[in-house]
Amino acid sequence: MSLRNQFEEKTKDPAVQKMLGIASEQEIETVWDRYENMLPQCGFGETGLCCRHCLQGPCRINPFEEGQETGICGATADVMVARGLDRAIAAGTAAHSGHAKHLAHTLLKMATGEAKDYKITDAVKLNKVANRLGIAVDNREEKEIALDVARAALADFNEKETPVLWAAGVVTPGRVKVLSDLGLVPKGIDHEVSEIMHRTLYGVDADPVNLLLGGLRCGVADLAGCYMGTDLADILFGTPTPLASEANLGTLKPDHVNIALHGHNPVLSEIIVKVAQDMKDEAAKAGAAGINIVGICCTGNELMERHGIPSCTHSVSQEMALLTGAVDAMIVDYQCIMPSIASVAECMGSKIITTMDICKISGADHIAVKEETAAENAKQAISSAISIFQTRKNRNCRIPDITNKVIAGFSTESIIAALSKLDAQDPLKPLVDNIKAGNIRGVCLFAGCNNVKIPQDTNYIQMAERLLKENVLVLATGCGAGSLMRHDFLDPSKTKERCGEGLFAVLNAIGEANGLGGPLPPVLHLGSCVDNSRAVEITVALANYLGVDIDQLPVVASAPEATSEKAISIGCYAVAAGLPTHVGVMIPVTGSALVTSVLTEKVKELTGGYFIVDPDPQSAADKLISAIDERRKGLGL
Amino acid sequence: MSLRNQFEEKTKDPAVQKMLGIASEQEIETVWDRYENMLPQCGFGETGLCCRHCLQGPCRINPFEEGQETGICGATADVMVARGLDRAIAAGTAAHSGHAKHLAHTLLKMATGEAKDYKITDAVKLNKVANRLGIAVDNREEKEIALDVARAALADFNEKETPVLWAAGVVTPGRVKVLSDLGLVPKGIDHEVSEIMHRTLYGVDADPVNLLLGGLRCGVADLAGCYMGTDLADILFGTPTPLASEANLGTLKPDHVNIALHGHNPVLSEIIVKVAQDMKDEAAKAGAAGINIVGICCTGNELMERHGIPSCTHSVSQEMALLTGAVDAMIVDYQCIMPSIASVAECMGSKIITTMDICKISGADHIAVKEETAAENAKQAISSAISIFQTRKNRNCRIPDITNKVIAGFSTESIIAALSKLDAQDPLKPLVDNIKAGNIRGVCLFAGCNNVKIPQDTNYIQMAERLLKENVLVLATGCGAGSLMRHDFLDPSKTKERCGEGLFAVLNAIGEANGLGGPLPPVLHLGSCVDNSRAVEITVALANYLGVDIDQLPVVASAPEATSEKAISIGCYAVAAGLPTHVGVMIPVTGSALVTSVLTEKVKELTGGYFIVDPDPQSAADKLISAIDERRKGLGL
Repeated sequence: MSLRNQFEEKTKDPAVQKMLGIASEQEIETVWDRYENMLPQCGFGETGLCCRHCLQGPCRINPFEEGQETGICGATADVMVARGLDRAIAAGTAAHSGHAKHLAHTLLKMATGEAKDYKITDAVKLNKVANRLGIAVDNREEKEIALDVARAALADFNEKETPVLWAAGVVTPGRVKVLSDLGLVPKGIDHEVSEIMHRTLYGVDADPVNLLLGGLRCGVADLAGCYMGTDLADILFGTPTPLASEANLGTLKPDHVNIALHGHNPVLSEIIVKVAQDMKDEAAKAGAAGINIVGICCTGNELMERHGIPSCTHSVSQEMALLTGAVDAMIVDYQCIMPSIASVAECMGSKIITTMDICKISGADHIAVKEETAAENAKQAISSAISIFQTRKNRNCRIPDITNKVIAGFSTESIIAALSKLDAQDPLKPLVDNIKAGNIRGVCLFAGCNNVKIPQDTNYIQMAERLLKENVLVLATGCGAGSLMRHDFLDPSKTKERCGEGLFAVLNAIGEANGLGGPLPPVLHLGSCVDNSRAVEITVALANYLGVDIDQLPVVASAPEATSEKAISIGCYAVAAGLPTHVGVMIPVTGSALVTSVLTEKVKELTGGYFIVDPDPQSAADKLISAIDERRKGLGL
Repeated sequence: MSLRNQFEEKTKDPAVQKMLGIASEQEIETVWDRYENMLPQCGFGETGLCCRHCLQGPCRINPFEEGQETGICGATADVMVARGLDRAIAAGTAAHSGHAKHLAHTLLKMATGEAKDYKITDAVKLNKVANRLGIAVDNREEKEIALDVARAALADFNEKETPVLWAAGVVTPGRVKVLSDLGLVPKGIDHEVSEIMHRTLYGVDADPVNLLLGGLRCGVADLAGCYMGTDLADILFGTPTPLASEANLGTLKPDHVNIALHGHNPVLSEIIVKVAQDMKDEAAKAGAAGINIVGICCTGNELMERHGIPSCTHSVSQEMALLTGAVDAMIVDYQCIMPSIASVAECMGSKIITTMDICKISGADHIAVKEETAAENAKQAISSAISIFQTRKNRNCRIPDITNKVIAGFSTESIIAALSKLDAQDPLKPLVDNIKAGNIRGVCLFAGCNNVKIPQDTNYIQMAERLLKENVLVLATGCGAGSLMRHDFLDPSKTKERCGEGLFAVLNAIGEANGLGGPLPPVLHLGSCVDNSRAVEITVALANYLGVDIDQLPVVASAPEATSEKAISIGCYAVAAGLPTHVGVMIPVTGSALVTSVLTEKVKELTGGYFIVDPDPQSAADKLISAIDERRKGLGL
């Protein structure tokens, strides 16, 4: 097997393939090496049939051995699998909502004047959110409204008599009823996480269906965390509007101080972008042509959707950015940050700077960033990058000359604004008419990660290619968007060749009406992984427009290369919301036929949504198209 | 090997040995069989070297294989072990505090008149707790005060500017400073649980020491859950005072309707006890001599400490109660309830009745108990037991004729009341004087579970025997108390033979002064596992009396047969409080030399407390005595 082929089995991204050649040459270990070293992976863990929830364990159920039908406590495979899944959902929910809580504190401190580096950037969004929450806006100062919004946000974490506002207030009235009847309306985000941890303790819940319903409720709490994360970031940093950017490793510039911002929360990265403007001279003094900020993972998506800042890579290939030798500092917040980057950075003379109390990495520098001192902290981090540049500037960088054109930044608001150019009075009408007419067969949201088990981007590419040709409108978030942008799916010059005729006509009409002189890109970038909320918002708007519930719409979701527990909790709220939801990686539930059938079939009778677990992208695409067609039929289309 | 010897390797409790003979004869599978079937247990899980926190895994680190030094993401053994431990702490905290939250809701609903089956039983305790919280008590209705206390309790779950009151308000001023300086004061119980789940997500915290400090803070939140659980139960159901009771399987009565109440929270069991009084006639009509209520695990401890209701067995031997054939209904709330009881009950014609939304068991009946309808729900459950009795009454029961005398119910309040008979003005003085004089060399709290890996009760027996002879005052809670009560350690007639001379003299003096005509029992029963708070309260009172901090006192703790994740979170707050804390079961941290050394050594420099992990009861006792002596020396004693 040639080297090139070997790398094609690891990634479809030609830039990453190049870097893997360099890693191999320099004998630097990457995530793919560690994955190969880990093979074969533990079959008990893979199927969810191991449990470490008490000190009598560890237990594992061996379906092929008599006498191991249950754990020591008597937990069946069904219970063990459901408990394990529930804890993953709790972790995903805790992460998204931790991110949102962080933003709520920032908004609060901005409003009280403690965090002077922040301001209200989008007062229209502030009022929109306040209105939804029943917070008065007329004749009030922006900061007063912001304070009330921040307090309402923080209150949503606490168990209370009333439902979580960012969950029950953001779906259709019909969906609120469905969820209420099933007991799936969360009472408080942190409360739900805690309750999952309680019920999955040794000797608590031993009814797999009860456990799964609890997990789904926690998943609905995850929707609240995501939605709140989007709302508050838009208020503080602006609601995205379409803008041009670039992706891939070629966005690194050898003669610039390169700062990669990695993680999820824009709370620091926004300030770094601002402060970097003021530090150009310092960079110039160090001999740099400028400061080049690039994003990785969802911090990258947040910066791209609001400022058009390029994304240099995503998810499983994060080490590759460092391997170029061009990254002076990788400043990280939290989530999806491989601990391995510390040692790769050390090899390459780069610096990893951690910034959050709950996310330190052994071997990295740490700057304890506070909202009150954000600009000062940002300056310190940038200075550190500049000083690394001084030691790096005469060394060779190996940056693959590969970039992809990107149009990003499609919020619900900007999509409706674009549609209003077709029908100012009734902007959703052109969209709905095209769905009815079949020009748009349905809608698919791609979300989630890359996963080292899948040749990077393969599933995204194959599924998006297929769905676009079938006139399915494709939305993307997170590292799903990241993947598709590195393969030109966010480039409007590719819309004609990528899309079926009907879909092209719609995307072109919208583009032309908006003065773009051509179509929208084939795939619409909705932002980071918390911004899956934007897909929910659009879907809910469509359902309300049509007077139906979400589970009747020809809308589906897919996380074809899921990695994080966050992808599991997102999948749960998609299913709770009523969507057929594909996952392209085996989740550790196959050890229980019952759990598998509840998630993939029986839950459909409850919420209308269900999981489709299929690692094959072609057959997964078939299933999503069938699901779309089934729903079109249900609507008489 | 004779059958008898075989059972001695499983349990030291002769009643349980008898039942194991019956199980063997009838070929009914027990927890010991399942444990044997599980052997050898997975070495990766045992050492904490496996991780399922993302879908790229499962990963496992093989210390004996090159190339497997980290997980796929680059997480080292240290990170993997610390993350796993943190999630266990979060689960334990969520469980204790879920129990406390349940009581807070009950108190709230009692105060608002929604839960009419509940009342304030101990108004003195209500005022004491209110005073500690800064809630006004003068000239106020009890229910008003209760409402404020309940609201303060519920607020402690939520992240807020002020620390968790039930944590920061219950330790010494010095300890508050130590914890504050280390960043270990929790801001909200549910918040801390959620933050642990966030920071242990793939790609978040990768600094093992940072992870462990986070875990310790969550452990301090667990103290709050426990302490609140005790406070609110005392207010609602009464603060324990010493009373006589019995333990072991001989407390089941063949001619009675036997109802075993199993789990942890007194919120339902208290009502069952009350309602059962009114249902005697119904039982008589069914041909029963009466209704015999017995407890299992901590629901048993809660009932024993307040009403002297016998405990029939505990923890690992819970199936044995059913095997007698005499239990008509086992009514369970939550925690430590083996799912296996449903199938044992089915074999024996008994009924398992689950009662809580978060704890159902496949194969059991479920009654959805609400505080608003508690008496009605209790009646339904008892009726169910009576109807089972009717089918059971002519069948043979096989109840071992073994009971143990027990004096239980030593709350802080009742201990101080007893001491005040020696010195009414200064009740702690006699205790402190005896510690100073060496009659009491130190204090050891036994807490925790039984664990199938250890011949049931062995470690408790051996360690308590040794410590008592060395004049260490022994306190016990939970299934630790359960274990010791089934071996006569709570029987005052054994005090002389069990205790060293100095300790006997003290226990005798207190007993005599209180008109008992003899000593207190060798071991003081403080209640259930949330009632470890009572040990904290006593310790804090001693420290404040002496004007020192907790980490200077000759006080130690031990969970020699720990099973539940709750034991881990309890251990963490004991260590955070400054206590040398023994665990007799290997916790899954041995895969990391760093984590092990932080927990067993380095943390001592921070909090003064530390873990002693030692499966050998004799050497563990040695180490606890050394720790006591070291502290005596530190105090100049």
